[in-house]
Amino acid sequence: MKASDLGERGIIELIWSVLSEHGGFKPSKIPLPHPDDATAIEMEGGKYLLMKSDTFVKRTDAPRGMRHRSMGRKALVMNISDLAAKGAEPLAFLFSLGVPRGYDARRIEELVQGLAEASREYCVPILGGDVCESKELFVAGFATGAAKRIVRRSGATPGDIVAVTGPFGDTAAALRILLEGLEAPPRLRRKALRSIYEPSARLGLGRRLAEAGVVTSSMDSSDGLAFTLNELARSSKVGMRISSIPASPVALELSRLHRLNVSDLVFFGGEEYEIVYTVSRGKWEDALRISRESGGHLIGIGEVILGSAVIYSEGGAEVPVPPKGWEHLK
Amino acid sequence: MKASDLGERGIIELIWSVLSEHGGFKPSKIPLPHPDDATAIEMEGGKYLLMKSDTFVKRTDAPRGMRHRSMGRKALVMNISDLAAKGAEPLAFLFSLGVPRGYDARRIEELVQGLAEASREYCVPILGGDVCESKELFVAGFATGAAKRIVRRSGATPGDIVAVTGPFGDTAAALRILLEGLEAPPRLRRKALRSIYEPSARLGLGRRLAEAGVVTSSMDSSDGLAFTLNELARSSKVGMRISSIPASPVALELSRLHRLNVSDLVFFGGEEYEIVYTVSRGKWEDALRISRESGGHLIGIGEVILGSAVIYSEGGAEVPVPPKGWEHLK
Repeated sequence: MKASDLGERGIIELIWSVLSEHGGFKPSKIPLPHPDDATAIEMEGGKYLLMKSDTFVKRTDAPRGMRHRSMGRKALVMNISDLAAKGAEPLAFLFSLGVPRGYDARRIEELVQGLAEASREYCVPILGGDVCESKELFVAGFATGAAKRIVRRSGATPGDIVAVTGPFGDTAAALRILLEGLEAPPRLRRKALRSIYEPSARLGLGRRLAEAGVVTSSMDSSDGLAFTLNELARSSKVGMRISSIPASPVALELSRLHRLNVSDLVFFGGEEYEIVYTVSRGKWEDALRISRESGGHLIGIGEVILGSAVIYSEGGAEVPVPPKGWEHLK
Repeated sequence: MKASDLGERGIIELIWSVLSEHGGFKPSKIPLPHPDDATAIEMEGGKYLLMKSDTFVKRTDAPRGMRHRSMGRKALVMNISDLAAKGAEPLAFLFSLGVPRGYDARRIEELVQGLAEASREYCVPILGGDVCESKELFVAGFATGAAKRIVRRSGATPGDIVAVTGPFGDTAAALRILLEGLEAPPRLRRKALRSIYEPSARLGLGRRLAEAGVVTSSMDSSDGLAFTLNELARSSKVGMRISSIPASPVALELSRLHRLNVSDLVFFGGEEYEIVYTVSRGKWEDALRISRESGGHLIGIGEVILGSAVIYSEGGAEVPVPPKGWEHLK
């Protein structure tokens, strides 16, 4: 069997089954068991130390036209986003840089400038790293954070409101423009491409919602909205009915121009660093107030229901939302 | 300028200069400033959280004949060794696995078995990781640890005793056998190769010596003994006089067989996971007692002197020990 037969998720499952079968050392408590956005251990004083590793590989993760500065920035953002989704305040970022022998040192400099920029933007110090020779450029990022209260993927209950921290569809629109050559007016094209070159993590909002105890489950949406909703539903052993799709202006305009199904752009994108939450119905107003106060958004898109399916109610008809999403090695 | 013109260490210096020039976010205190074996932040209660990232790239880091199980084991050991050198107790290990599409899934399984084995051996839980597609196999490891007291590279003072936690020369002997085809009796060959396939980290001893406050500086010796001594001297702004070389039985026997200079094998190896310490002269007996009690070794090899050079006194003559060592991308 080859790695590509298993795919990224298949290999991750293989790893966890080997680790549990061969009895790697286990701590007494695992506050965020696999699978979740990040991992954690409990520290003295009841606080949690969160950790996340995620790798940016230029060949597969950098869309055409992405500058090295943006690559560096994104390598940090993708790790911070997972901490944000779990409610943590970042403490430090480290990275392992894999560089081909002949790589232009100026490009490495630009990449590190992007890392420095993201370090300032999210107030997370870059404290260390290592450099190794590699056949292709990669940045393996490692972020640690602290949280008083963490949010798991598994806490959603029927009746909860499903909410997202921003609209979706920009990255799917960008990839249609970039990979399929879809035409778009310059302004639209620029806005779409910005979403894949310069993503942002919802750090402040994520921490405040977790600390306030108003959210019951959460996940970073970088695997795509459809995949994320299905994963939250699976982890929480519930279903979800999505009644309103959070389409971005870019997605709406591109779908109008090219008669695309806007829900495809919204559900089956990926690399969007919003957070998907379920919110206790009785705390919805509190959650909205917190999101306003922290300068963010919280958009209700549906509700948690009994069952296991994620369903989209579109004009009276109910259609299933399959857990499709982008995956490495597939 | 190409990456290989700078080399691993040159790129690391480039990274730190860009980060300081472009003002990445800075914490108020950096307990283990660059360069040191690991990085740290101060936590509540005066404890330190240590972090380390180091990457195992199969093409450059796996000597011929190394099994995937040993590769997994080593990917963890090389990170834990740096924590050990700084006096930390490991809390968690994460890794990013880069896999080529066509890679045999059984080899990945073996690699993870090696990780699980090392996880048990050093009582460090493997809590997370990610998988990405890569042109070649790599394991980017990330270790976190906690310490009440940390040891820096920069604390050595003239008069201190220079000491190591074990003999040197096995890995240099192994590479001469493997790469230069030097002949060796099967028993000697097996012992030598074991040092590069199955290295160990001095975890228990490292933590106890740091906690007892008997050591003034420390560094993991994986860059080679000569490089490590020079780096400790440079960081502490002192010189060192080495009077007795800690040659391993394997190095002694191979050098006798092939008329090699045994000090070359001892000084210019690498990938040896001993710790090099400087010890306050008044606490040398305490340090020896602690090393005996923890089942380890501490071998005095010289003393810290005024100046900046590392010198080896060999039969009356004093020869300089240059900071030669293996480096990625060179």
